[in-house]
Amino acid sequence: MEAFLNPKSVLLVGVTRRTGVGAYNNLEVMRRYGYRGPVFVVHPSETEIFGHPTYRSVAEVPQVPDLAVVSVGRDRVVPVVEDCVRKGIRNIVVISQGFADADAEGRALQDTLVSLCRDKGVRVLGPNTMGTLNAFDGFSTAFIDIARDPAPPPLTLVAQSGVLQVGIESFTGRLGKAIDIGNGCDIHFVDALRYCADDPKTEIIVLHMEGMRDGRTFLEVAASIASRKPIVVLKTGRSRAGARAALSHTGSMVGEDAVFDAAFQKAGLIRVRTMVELRAVCKAFLHFRPMVGPNLAVLTATGACGIMTADACEDFGLQLAPFPEAARSLLENPKIAWHHLGNPVDLWPLGMVGGSFPEVLEKAAEALLASEDTHAVLAIFPRMASPLHDNLRYEALLRRVQEKNGSRKPIACWVYGDGAREEAERLDRVPGVACFAGIDEAVMGLAATYRFHRLRQRAVSKTFVVPAQVREKIQAPKGMLLGEAAMEWLRRYGIPTAPSMVTDEPEAAVGWAHQTGFPVVLKVVSPQWVHKSDAGGVVTGLDDPDVVRGAFNDLMQRFRAACPDGELTGIQVQKQMSGWEMLFGIKRDPQFGPVVVVGMGGIYAEVFQDVRRALAPVSFEEAMDMITSLRLYPLLRGVRGQPPAHLESLAAALVGLSKLAWDHPEVAELDINPVFAFAEGCCAVDCRIILG
Amino acid sequence: MEAFLNPKSVLLVGVTRRTGVGAYNNLEVMRRYGYRGPVFVVHPSETEIFGHPTYRSVAEVPQVPDLAVVSVGRDRVVPVVEDCVRKGIRNIVVISQGFADADAEGRALQDTLVSLCRDKGVRVLGPNTMGTLNAFDGFSTAFIDIARDPAPPPLTLVAQSGVLQVGIESFTGRLGKAIDIGNGCDIHFVDALRYCADDPKTEIIVLHMEGMRDGRTFLEVAASIASRKPIVVLKTGRSRAGARAALSHTGSMVGEDAVFDAAFQKAGLIRVRTMVELRAVCKAFLHFRPMVGPNLAVLTATGACGIMTADACEDFGLQLAPFPEAARSLLENPKIAWHHLGNPVDLWPLGMVGGSFPEVLEKAAEALLASEDTHAVLAIFPRMASPLHDNLRYEALLRRVQEKNGSRKPIACWVYGDGAREEAERLDRVPGVACFAGIDEAVMGLAATYRFHRLRQRAVSKTFVVPAQVREKIQAPKGMLLGEAAMEWLRRYGIPTAPSMVTDEPEAAVGWAHQTGFPVVLKVVSPQWVHKSDAGGVVTGLDDPDVVRGAFNDLMQRFRAACPDGELTGIQVQKQMSGWEMLFGIKRDPQFGPVVVVGMGGIYAEVFQDVRRALAPVSFEEAMDMITSLRLYPLLRGVRGQPPAHLESLAAALVGLSKLAWDHPEVAELDINPVFAFAEGCCAVDCRIILG
Repeated sequence: MEAFLNPKSVLLVGVTRRTGVGAYNNLEVMRRYGYRGPVFVVHPSETEIFGHPTYRSVAEVPQVPDLAVVSVGRDRVVPVVEDCVRKGIRNIVVISQGFADADAEGRALQDTLVSLCRDKGVRVLGPNTMGTLNAFDGFSTAFIDIARDPAPPPLTLVAQSGVLQVGIESFTGRLGKAIDIGNGCDIHFVDALRYCADDPKTEIIVLHMEGMRDGRTFLEVAASIASRKPIVVLKTGRSRAGARAALSHTGSMVGEDAVFDAAFQKAGLIRVRTMVELRAVCKAFLHFRPMVGPNLAVLTATGACGIMTADACEDFGLQLAPFPEAARSLLENPKIAWHHLGNPVDLWPLGMVGGSFPEVLEKAAEALLASEDTHAVLAIFPRMASPLHDNLRYEALLRRVQEKNGSRKPIACWVYGDGAREEAERLDRVPGVACFAGIDEAVMGLAATYRFHRLRQRAVSKTFVVPAQVREKIQAPKGMLLGEAAMEWLRRYGIPTAPSMVTDEPEAAVGWAHQTGFPVVLKVVSPQWVHKSDAGGVVTGLDDPDVVRGAFNDLMQRFRAACPDGELTGIQVQKQMSGWEMLFGIKRDPQFGPVVVVGMGGIYAEVFQDVRRALAPVSFEEAMDMITSLRLYPLLRGVRGQPPAHLESLAAALVGLSKLAWDHPEVAELDINPVFAFAEGCCAVDCRIILG
Repeated sequence: MEAFLNPKSVLLVGVTRRTGVGAYNNLEVMRRYGYRGPVFVVHPSETEIFGHPTYRSVAEVPQVPDLAVVSVGRDRVVPVVEDCVRKGIRNIVVISQGFADADAEGRALQDTLVSLCRDKGVRVLGPNTMGTLNAFDGFSTAFIDIARDPAPPPLTLVAQSGVLQVGIESFTGRLGKAIDIGNGCDIHFVDALRYCADDPKTEIIVLHMEGMRDGRTFLEVAASIASRKPIVVLKTGRSRAGARAALSHTGSMVGEDAVFDAAFQKAGLIRVRTMVELRAVCKAFLHFRPMVGPNLAVLTATGACGIMTADACEDFGLQLAPFPEAARSLLENPKIAWHHLGNPVDLWPLGMVGGSFPEVLEKAAEALLASEDTHAVLAIFPRMASPLHDNLRYEALLRRVQEKNGSRKPIACWVYGDGAREEAERLDRVPGVACFAGIDEAVMGLAATYRFHRLRQRAVSKTFVVPAQVREKIQAPKGMLLGEAAMEWLRRYGIPTAPSMVTDEPEAAVGWAHQTGFPVVLKVVSPQWVHKSDAGGVVTGLDDPDVVRGAFNDLMQRFRAACPDGELTGIQVQKQMSGWEMLFGIKRDPQFGPVVVVGMGGIYAEVFQDVRRALAPVSFEEAMDMITSLRLYPLLRGVRGQPPAHLESLAAALVGLSKLAWDHPEVAELDINPVFAFAEGCCAVDCRIILG
């Protein structure tokens, strides 16, 4: 990647003599951004562009440039890239649009591009990209003139669009380096992450993601970085309409958004959902050492904002720090004995009576930061442009506070009033201090640093890729496995199943029931009756031989009447189980592969969607986390005199299921519904496996 | 209220000669803000302040001023107010803190203040307030110098804090008028709303609310305005920590936040949850005519932002407009036949190939606005400070577009890039155009205008206050009514109940069951066993006389063993019902009075909290809305071959319950759990009424 961000020399194909307004000339922009290395320009007719001699073809260029940047029309891209490859150029940026982002022809062109480079080990960034930006070394391939940060921050952006480079302020706030992978035909998030992992100038990684490829490798690489450098991800296309739009933008196929959540969770990525949150979180990481606990002390010039902060803490997972008693005697003022001191600390009355508001703020900030129970401070105060309020200045005082504090603990500020913007810019320069656009933004930012702190401490290393095991494949002539045949596979993976047998002989069923014990259940097994309950193909609570016999014959007749030509595997007779009705499942995600699901089963399952997903394989601890984070978990712990369900068995079964999912990529979908959870264990009662 | 916002003359008590920085002198601030009327100053020792002669006491003032503004220490407030009342002053602002916001003594002082004014019909604003602001007429009682809007917007703020006046930009963006009710000892939201209703300079009403009083009257007044003028409410103290903080800020007792939701919903208020949302929504109302449908057309310079917009639409209840076919031929460019035209419209390729991006934007905006299926446009485009991009100017073009459009349909913009802020300020001046801080903000704002459109169309007028009816009070010696005694009250309000009787004779139970039909249920009725299921006091599925007899004796013994001195009303024998298990309830909210609740019953009720609340009385339509918006509603419509539940019966029962709640303020709490819903109707099975 180094050649893409800091090339020794550059070849440009597709620039013209057009300059200035509306030209979008990337030679002009590159020079303005600060690139000082040699630039070779290929042009079919001009002899010189902006003082650079031109060459008729790539072959004529006197050196092998480190990087080629191609911005010709899509039909000319493949020949130009062929020339570059032939020349021996190893790194190519294709700016041009109209590939997988456009139509079938574009997709075919992109495939050609990839194959002709991959064979030769040539790396391609794009197509449909703005390319790279490097404020440290002064390099940009953009065709839009972007302001270069004079003191580049250690933040690297990897995006699927150039808009995050053009609209820096609105997205990450500032940029040290950026890579726009565009359609990501070759270089993708994995390559960019690997670069960031080793780059000493990257301390914070921000991803803007529309889709994913090699999901497992991505997660493995991300997980290896996530506890050293925060990885913030804005994954868009969350909604159905958004996912459709993503497909037409970069040709990204987007899977279920909840699976991305599960994947990010597993790898330790910090997901943000909006631009507002992205800005806030980037700012926090750029200014703060992470909060080492959830406790926030709030200093405010107004009680109203204390209330809003308390609300925001609950929204984003922080809490109000206990008010330190040591601070009480320091701050109390006998002239307003009625003034209540607590957290949030309403400072205004103290400032009005005690003299100056900034002085009180300084004293309070010191006292609260000194408390072990405070992990960060949010200071909320006014700054007015009016000369009447020229005393409301905070830079020097916060500098003093942070010197004593050693800027160990974050001080987030929100300044309001008509002089606020300039004040905020000054305060942002104080180490360990950052001003946010509002209370919610400040709390979002702080909360993200605390999340990163917890990621740093996470001991368990997760596994994303397990070596392939050679095992017998699951086979089914019609691609679907039901009843006992499916249950047999569950047992192989240690998932307990309800005792049962399948037969077409009523007497065999009666005999089996007699031996195993009543009550039993009878179920029709047929690919025509997959939703057998709805079809009336299940009879429960059969507690003597006669009833079993009668129900058996009844079911046979009912099925035959409904499906005269249906394929009847037999009638399953099963010991009747009871307990909490749950469901297990396997799904296969286009990006991340096998996903296991656990949730509430039964008739309410669909409306409440109380499910947790995790990428297979899952460890026992992960399985327990999934179960204990279900909404119905309090019930599983035991209520109303009922004993708790045996959670360890459930978790162990889930681990087994995740192994099955991993070992058998031929399983497209698997549903165990229901699984009963009870005091002594758990038990799968019905299973359906779809291959494909 | 007029005298509070535009007084003919003002009396100030509590100002000093201190001036300039740090003085917070409200005489100085008032004059700077633009008040030109006569100001009388009372001061015990000075003879003159800022050129105003002073008076030793209120009595000495030569006129009766229209408004008094009091900012002395809390101990001197009552005597000063007494002087004002004696003088004949009708309107008083008490700036001072330390009342119900502080301690018991402060609360008592506030009560004194209220009673001495109420008797004389004198109105008080505050205490603990910044008072009022009126940018039209140039009046402010604030002690902080606030910039006066040169072209005041028709937006009036009613708040419980001065911070929304000081931090205008961060909250409502701009302010025409503001009223800070502070502790709200006398003037409260209702008074302020009535003023706003009739004020021709108020078209948008914004409430910042920490707590509520006279909730019913408030809602009635609000509902009478809400379809003419949008009422936007930022209700804080949503969280438990926030509610605690609210109590200590303005002494507001805050009830359950979900009840506020139900109340706002009923009255047609537009609730916002964060400052970000408040700013966005205010801006939308200040700039736009409401969207008359949910369809948004998106014009964007980048596909990435189209995806983000699609996500935001789903988050906030808008949808992407269908792309109008008429626009296709207008915008298509044969040079990039691969370019996909749809909504969101990615304009950049068209701009690059077709000439100028702004030209394409203009053409596209016109074409999309012309479509009947487009209700608003969101335009997303870059503006760079660089001279290389000086062509990216939009003001004139949007002006042309809006002239053709007659600014009927909103054009929301989001401009990014390093020249964006100045461009946004210019665009904000184009009628019907508003620039937002980001995509989410734009969509939030637009969605609020569409919500207001629907409120304008709402035909049904809701009732908040019903004349009190003289009725028999519900009585119970120990404050709790159980079993049949409670069910009797349900029947009086037309709520069907399961047939049952209470007896302490086993044979009477057997006889009743025989007559009514098996199976039956037996339940212990005792105030000691309110949670009788958990205590083992319920036996179900009894289907013959012997079983009933055995279970009856068993229950008697079990109760006696557990509670030797317990009070046993008897054993209830009840026909066993079945169906969907639901619950009904009545709660009494401190602000809004009787609230009815409907939700999922049974063992999952607590973990899923699938309930809907509404203020009593509820109409049949409201009751149907509550039921159909439950998450379990799809099940009630009938699933898996089961017939649908009889929704009309459920709704009618809920209406009856809401009448009971309204007629019987002595009912503190009522729970019907379960109510069974089935194909033919519904039926209450158990009820508990708590009085108090």
